[in-house]
Amino acid sequence: MGLSDLFEPDGIAVVGASKTPGKLGNDAMTNIQSYEGQIYPVNPSSSGSVFGYEFVDSVSKTNADLALCCVPGPALPDVLEECGEAGIGAAVIFAGGFSEVDEDGAQLENTITEIANKYEITLLGPNTAGYIIPHLDFYGSFVPRINEIETGNVGIVAQSGGVGVTAAFQLQREGYGVSAMFGLGNRANTGFAEIIPMLDDDPRTDVIALHIEGTDDVDNVLEVCQNTETPIVAFKVGEEEVGDFVQSHTGAPDQGNERYETAFSTQGLSTATSVTELIDAGRSLADSPTPNGPNVGLVTAQAGPGIMITDYLKQAGAEFPKLTAQTQEKVDEILAGITYKENPVDTGRPMPEFGDVVDAVARDENIDIVLVYEIYEDSLGYPVDELETLAQEVDKPVLFTVAGPNEALADERMQMEEVGIPTFDTPERGANAVAALIDSVTETE
Amino acid sequence: MGLSDLFEPDGIAVVGASKTPGKLGNDAMTNIQSYEGQIYPVNPSSSGSVFGYEFVDSVSKTNADLALCCVPGPALPDVLEECGEAGIGAAVIFAGGFSEVDEDGAQLENTITEIANKYEITLLGPNTAGYIIPHLDFYGSFVPRINEIETGNVGIVAQSGGVGVTAAFQLQREGYGVSAMFGLGNRANTGFAEIIPMLDDDPRTDVIALHIEGTDDVDNVLEVCQNTETPIVAFKVGEEEVGDFVQSHTGAPDQGNERYETAFSTQGLSTATSVTELIDAGRSLADSPTPNGPNVGLVTAQAGPGIMITDYLKQAGAEFPKLTAQTQEKVDEILAGITYKENPVDTGRPMPEFGDVVDAVARDENIDIVLVYEIYEDSLGYPVDELETLAQEVDKPVLFTVAGPNEALADERMQMEEVGIPTFDTPERGANAVAALIDSVTETE
Repeated sequence: MGLSDLFEPDGIAVVGASKTPGKLGNDAMTNIQSYEGQIYPVNPSSSGSVFGYEFVDSVSKTNADLALCCVPGPALPDVLEECGEAGIGAAVIFAGGFSEVDEDGAQLENTITEIANKYEITLLGPNTAGYIIPHLDFYGSFVPRINEIETGNVGIVAQSGGVGVTAAFQLQREGYGVSAMFGLGNRANTGFAEIIPMLDDDPRTDVIALHIEGTDDVDNVLEVCQNTETPIVAFKVGEEEVGDFVQSHTGAPDQGNERYETAFSTQGLSTATSVTELIDAGRSLADSPTPNGPNVGLVTAQAGPGIMITDYLKQAGAEFPKLTAQTQEKVDEILAGITYKENPVDTGRPMPEFGDVVDAVARDENIDIVLVYEIYEDSLGYPVDELETLAQEVDKPVLFTVAGPNEALADERMQMEEVGIPTFDTPERGANAVAALIDSVTETE
Repeated sequence: MGLSDLFEPDGIAVVGASKTPGKLGNDAMTNIQSYEGQIYPVNPSSSGSVFGYEFVDSVSKTNADLALCCVPGPALPDVLEECGEAGIGAAVIFAGGFSEVDEDGAQLENTITEIANKYEITLLGPNTAGYIIPHLDFYGSFVPRINEIETGNVGIVAQSGGVGVTAAFQLQREGYGVSAMFGLGNRANTGFAEIIPMLDDDPRTDVIALHIEGTDDVDNVLEVCQNTETPIVAFKVGEEEVGDFVQSHTGAPDQGNERYETAFSTQGLSTATSVTELIDAGRSLADSPTPNGPNVGLVTAQAGPGIMITDYLKQAGAEFPKLTAQTQEKVDEILAGITYKENPVDTGRPMPEFGDVVDAVARDENIDIVLVYEIYEDSLGYPVDELETLAQEVDKPVLFTVAGPNEALADERMQMEEVGIPTFDTPERGANAVAALIDSVTETE
C-alpha cells in the first residue's frame, strides 16, 4: 500500500479542483498550495488555472502519487480506477454518503475499497476532513484556515475529522501545534492500525493522541498500541448510548468503552474524556520525561486551588508520599510559620523563596512527578531560573499551573515552556496533565 | 452588623498601609486607589503619603466605615478595638494564622470575633485575599493586578480567596468579568449565609457562583440558597480525602460532598466540579432564560464533536426528544441527503442554511434548550442574524459552541454574546453549560 505516498508525496492531484470560492475543490486547493511538491488541479470541466496551477483533465496527465478527491461519491469508482492506472499510491476521499448512510452507501464503499486494494492505493476516508503535516507545509483538507495550524510534537489520529480539526485548532489557539493530524473517517482500508506505526516512526511526533468512536478491528488496534514506543493517550467516546449517532457518522460499530479502558489501563496507556484533556495529556506526555511512579509532590502558593488539585489527583490514583526528613527540614526552614508544609506543600502566598521550595520537593527521592500552582505576582514573577536548573538536572516531570493576570505572566510562561516545563492554565488542566503521566506508569509498577 | 459598609463604604482605612512595594499594605493601597470614596492609609510608623494619600496614625483620625487590615494577627485585637471605637462597621482581615493553624490561632480568632461582635463589625476573613466589586471600582485585595478585572454579571462567593481570584482572573482572561468576588476565608462572623442574600439583592448579579470547602452552618447555608431568587451554581470540593488540607486552609470542617449534592439537586441548584465548569455554568445561567425542561435540541455542523456533546449531555440527564413532524419536515427539506438529521441534527458541514436549521429546532415546542456546534468557515460565517432574531422571539436558552480559527471567529462570537447567546469554545464546555441549565430545572418538574 502507498502509506509512504500519504506521508511524503512528491506530486498531488486535486481531483475536482475548482476556481469557485466556497467549493470543496477550491478550499482544498487553497490549503494545499503551500506544499513544495507538484500540485495538479484535475478537472475535465475546467480550463485555465487556479492559484497559478494549470488545470489538467485527467490524473493520467500528472506525476502525482497522492490524490485529494473533491468529487461526490458516485464519481469515485471511475476516479480511483484512473488513479490506479496512473500509479497513484494514496487517495483522500472527503465525500460522505457511504457505509455511514445506508446499504447503497455501504455497497459503494465496498466498490471503492476493492478498486483501491486492487491498485494498492492507501485510502484515507471516505467521509473525512483530511490530514495535515505542518512541518511539510502539507494541508490536505478542505477546512478553511487549517493551514494556519503550526508544527508541534503532538500527533493526532482522530476517527472523526471534525474532532481532529477541533483539537488541532485548540492547540493552535493556545500557542502550540501538531506534528500531524489525521482524520480517519470510515477507514475503508486505512485506520488506526496503519497510521499509528507511521507516527511512531516519525521523529517529530512525541506523543500520539487518539480519538476513537469504535472500530471493527479492535484487537488489532490494541495490539498496535501495545507495540508503539511513542506514548499514547486515547479518548474513547461513548459513556452513554450514542451508538446510532456514531454508526451514522463514521460507520463505526457501537462499542462500549470498557473493553478499551481495560486494555488501555493494562497497557499503561493514558486516557482522556474530552478534547481538552486529550491535548493536555498529549502535551504533558510529549514534553515530560517518563515518571518512575505515581508519587506526586504538589507545591502551591494558594491553598484553595491546591486542595482542588489534590482532590482531582487522588481520584486519578496519585499518591502524595511524605517528603524525606532532609527535604522536610529544608522546606520547614523556608516556610517557618506556614500551616500546611508537608506534601502537598502550601506556601501560603507567593514568596521570593518559592522556587527553592519547588527545587527541594523536586529533588526529593520520594517524589516522581512535581506539580506547581501559583497565581502570578509581578514583583516576584515565576521561578524560571530554578525551573530551568531543575529541568536540566532532574529527570522527572515538573509541570506548572499558571493563574492570574494572563498578559503579565505570558513571557515567563513561555520561558518555562522553552526549558521543558509544560504549563497549564486552570487547576483541573494541571491536574489532568499529571493524571496522564500517572496512567503512563501503571505498566511499569 | 455592617454588611452595607462592606458593600458600599464611604471611607476606607487601610490599616498597615505601606510605601514599600511588595508589602501587603502597599499592594492593598495600589488596588484600592480607584475607589471613589475617601481612602485613609493608617500607619503610626509612617509619615508623608502613599499614592498621594496622607498617612494618619490611627483609624480614629478617619471617617472610614470599612477597614482593610494589612497587619499580622497578633496586632488585630487592638486594631479592631480601635475600629469599633471609631465606628467602623466592616473590616477585612487578610492575615492568616488563626483557627486554620492551631489552638492558639483558634483562640486569637475567638478574641477578634468577640471584639467584632461587640462593636457589630462585619468581619471578612481572617485568612482571605479580600473582595472586589468592579462596577464600583472597588478592589479590596492585596492580589496584584486584581484591579484589571472588569464588571460582569457573575457574582463569586468563594470560601478560598485563592479560588475566587483564580476564577475571576479566568473570566477576565476569557473576556468576561464579575459583578463581585468575595473570598470568605475563615468566616469569623460573615460567611455564605450573609453574603449570598446581599448578592441576591444586587441587580448587577445575575448568577451566584459558590466555592465551598465545608461549613459548620451547613443547614443555614442550604436554607439561604433555597430562599435565593438569583440562580446559584455551587462547586463543593472534596470527592476524596482532603480533609486535613481543608482544615488547615480555612479552618473548615471535613465534610463529604453528598449532603450538599443531595440538597442542591433537590433544590434545583446547579453544581460544578471545576473552576472552569463553575464559571461556564455561571455564564450560562446568568445570560439565558430559565428553561422549561431538560429537552435539548442539538444542532451540529460536525458529527464527531456532536457525538461527544450528546454523550456528555446524556450523562448529565438531558433528553433528546424527537422533533415535531413540522420541524422535521423543514429540517429534512434543508438537509436532503444528510445522514443524521433527527435530533441531534447533524448538517454534515457548515452550510448557508445552517442558521435556518438552528431556527427551526429552536422554535420546536418539544425543545427546551438549544445547543449549537460549528467549526467556523470564513465564507459562511456564523448565523448571527438568525440567532439575534431567535434571542428576541424565542424565550429559551440558545447556546453556541465555537471552534476553529479563533481570530477569524472572534468578531462574530462577540456579536452573538451581545445579542444574548452565550458562547463556549470546546465541546465539553458547551455541554457543561447546558448541563447547568438542566440542573436548574429539576425543581420545577
